[in-house]
Amino acid sequence: MENWINELKEYLPDSQVMTELADRYSYSFDASFGEYLPDAVVQAKNKQQVVYILKIANQFRVPVYPRGQGTCLSGGPLPVKGGMVLDLSQWPSMIDVHPDDLTVVVSPSALTANINQAAEEHGLMYAPDPSSAHVATIGGNLAENSGGPRGLKYGVTKDFVLGLEVITPEGEIMRTGGQTIKNVTGFDLTKLIVGSEGVLGVITEATLKLVPKPPAVQTILAVFDNVRKAGEAISKTLTSGILPSKMEFMDQACIQAVEDFKSAGLPVHAKALVIIELDGHPEALKVERELVLKIMKRIGATETVIPQTEEEAARIWQSRKQVSPAIAKIKPTKVSEDATVPRSKIPDLIDRLQEIKEKYEVEVVVFGHAGDGNLHPNVLCDKRDQEEMRRVEQAVGEIFEAAIELGGTLSGEHGIGTMKAPFMESELGSVGIDMMKRIKDSWDPNGIMNPGKIFPEKGQKLVLRNE
Amino acid sequence: MENWINELKEYLPDSQVMTELADRYSYSFDASFGEYLPDAVVQAKNKQQVVYILKIANQFRVPVYPRGQGTCLSGGPLPVKGGMVLDLSQWPSMIDVHPDDLTVVVSPSALTANINQAAEEHGLMYAPDPSSAHVATIGGNLAENSGGPRGLKYGVTKDFVLGLEVITPEGEIMRTGGQTIKNVTGFDLTKLIVGSEGVLGVITEATLKLVPKPPAVQTILAVFDNVRKAGEAISKTLTSGILPSKMEFMDQACIQAVEDFKSAGLPVHAKALVIIELDGHPEALKVERELVLKIMKRIGATETVIPQTEEEAARIWQSRKQVSPAIAKIKPTKVSEDATVPRSKIPDLIDRLQEIKEKYEVEVVVFGHAGDGNLHPNVLCDKRDQEEMRRVEQAVGEIFEAAIELGGTLSGEHGIGTMKAPFMESELGSVGIDMMKRIKDSWDPNGIMNPGKIFPEKGQKLVLRNE
Repeated sequence: MENWINELKEYLPDSQVMTELADRYSYSFDASFGEYLPDAVVQAKNKQQVVYILKIANQFRVPVYPRGQGTCLSGGPLPVKGGMVLDLSQWPSMIDVHPDDLTVVVSPSALTANINQAAEEHGLMYAPDPSSAHVATIGGNLAENSGGPRGLKYGVTKDFVLGLEVITPEGEIMRTGGQTIKNVTGFDLTKLIVGSEGVLGVITEATLKLVPKPPAVQTILAVFDNVRKAGEAISKTLTSGILPSKMEFMDQACIQAVEDFKSAGLPVHAKALVIIELDGHPEALKVERELVLKIMKRIGATETVIPQTEEEAARIWQSRKQVSPAIAKIKPTKVSEDATVPRSKIPDLIDRLQEIKEKYEVEVVVFGHAGDGNLHPNVLCDKRDQEEMRRVEQAVGEIFEAAIELGGTLSGEHGIGTMKAPFMESELGSVGIDMMKRIKDSWDPNGIMNPGKIFPEKGQKLVLRNE
Repeated sequence: MENWINELKEYLPDSQVMTELADRYSYSFDASFGEYLPDAVVQAKNKQQVVYILKIANQFRVPVYPRGQGTCLSGGPLPVKGGMVLDLSQWPSMIDVHPDDLTVVVSPSALTANINQAAEEHGLMYAPDPSSAHVATIGGNLAENSGGPRGLKYGVTKDFVLGLEVITPEGEIMRTGGQTIKNVTGFDLTKLIVGSEGVLGVITEATLKLVPKPPAVQTILAVFDNVRKAGEAISKTLTSGILPSKMEFMDQACIQAVEDFKSAGLPVHAKALVIIELDGHPEALKVERELVLKIMKRIGATETVIPQTEEEAARIWQSRKQVSPAIAKIKPTKVSEDATVPRSKIPDLIDRLQEIKEKYEVEVVVFGHAGDGNLHPNVLCDKRDQEEMRRVEQAVGEIFEAAIELGGTLSGEHGIGTMKAPFMESELGSVGIDMMKRIKDSWDPNGIMNPGKIFPEKGQKLVLRNE
């Protein structure tokens, strides 16, 4: 092991190659489940350093796990097979807006919220808005193809990437796509790499698309005494000819958790909330707002709220953002899932989650981007309780099965990472996995890039217990 | 050769395996340049037939060129290396709308315009609208990632594909993506295959995304006495906070050609026209219309026209659609290009095209989707005139160079096919092409799928002459 570390120190400043236990420990976990100690943590601050690091990694066959701020919910940066974590968060931040082209060029280390803020100074918007946008790097968003509430109208990270600079697994500099909105020059390597969870190379620069910032927004809150009805209201709105920018769902447990965490005056008696944001021209919003209110009431909302001030609207959205930290307070361990179904199947998925919760006697809270069929069922548990964790494993497995049976997918926006790998074949079939593996093997013949992710190992099962 | 044809006839009805010269000739050209006679034309009408055909093709190492209606502008279905054209246009058409999921499942043979028509019956829209939509199949649109005017606001074919059924080059059935709006389960094979020009497999089914049909549209026509000013007006509109659904450009030669072809009352004295369509709620359209008119006038439009009836608006758009057939009447040969640049560079590209036209004394007409930087310079010539064609070759080469120098791409929506292959390396670099080739080789070890497309051969140059 010392050989490759010494080789790295030949070229990189000593401060960028960390081998102390305390440093390694800081990089042994992310926002998902599990801890894995890397052999070293290596920081890269420019593309030549990445080239060098990957060439050494190939020479010594050392696994490399790229990492931004470690907010990943599926284990993307976890060093599950030892080797080095490649920390890109210290790369000098670059956010270079080209307002006349409606584009922005960014470094992997730029924080996602800062990109949108820079765009807003030109009347533009970078639409993808994962809840972690203020702390997460765009590099991580690109690797995992992050979503967010505005995905409903605007799409996810992938839909906003025009071009990339990527260091291939073997350490070659490659440019994909470009600066134009349309591009069909050869295979779409840009969209292949975005969302490939760091197994196909290291992203060192991205050109992102911007859109005009909508001149006005309108928040609507609808309260339901029945979870299924909330699902129906969402489905009905989307087939009415209106495309809201956001359409979020929270069940009673989430509402209660958020109110306990930091009260925003949400109705804790409600069985479910639907929070909607419309955007566009103020005149259009007035019309659309009335239509949405009519639909909510017809389906059976017990109450609808139109915030009277911007602050009030911001408070409602802030409460939605705080669901994840708030529910983490309920029990020590949170297994966060990401099942996504065709939009019309949201009410059925909600029913199935309720059944699973009762069958395995586990605590499941549900929230998420219901407008595009993407729910976040979270199982709250205690990882020290082996017996409970066994039930959690079964419940999680059944959540995945339910999503696939309803015509859906394992993951809408968080990625496969480590935990969902065992379920890949049930969704993709053996041919799908084989064709993905062929790409991986042809690009990364030594298998150094982020091993242990996406692809299941022979006989791999979901294990949430320490054995 | 007879061996593989006999093998195909073992399984397929005789009428689906055509070897007569007249039949083969009908499949020797598309809407681009060049003629290549296949050894046979094979029709497939279901996926089992495709599986069988590809297995035989691998066994006998016979090239396979998938083809829809042959409207391709870049040579996608041309049988440049002999072998069989795989005609998918006779596949029973399926267009299965799922209104509650906002999706539609289609066969490769469905005509694109019919898909949109089926969606409209449910108040929905399939947005991609290539000018050939009424005759082209969705299979061809998927293979080439077709665009169209509405690409400006809604995106191109790729942005509307949720999932595919694909027969791999080796004849295995694979499903990619699914029915959900969001999906990050493994590599995005869907977006890799869409636009891969038939070199990675045969698409046998697609699940497409639909969006609510906008409640109203508003057409605006702006007339300019200066081409550059028209480009500036487009750029200015897009940075004003308005995102039109379409924003098209026509130069004087196009206006004249369309008026000669079928008069729509366009101003033939104009140097350039910009045709805009706004869509959304009627109230918003009123506001946006006034803003657009103000911008057009400020930049220097000599006239602006608001159609008074739906018929008048339809006539304007019909004239735009007829540019391609109309200019084909001017001279016997039309070399249609597809250069795309960052939006702010549209005025510069227009200047460069004028210079190239004068330098090589060739006839170049320009129209296209200026709102997303995607112009269609067409060189009008006579392929029997070898001396002229030599100048055309040089002019086309310089158009590609200009696009790349301006930060653009060889192709925005028509694909690389045969003609643009020699210019691939100048845009992608050798690493980019190598990484694409690795995918191709790992998926299609015998190289049977649509050989001679996308990838340049050693020393390959653009040749438009018969030598």
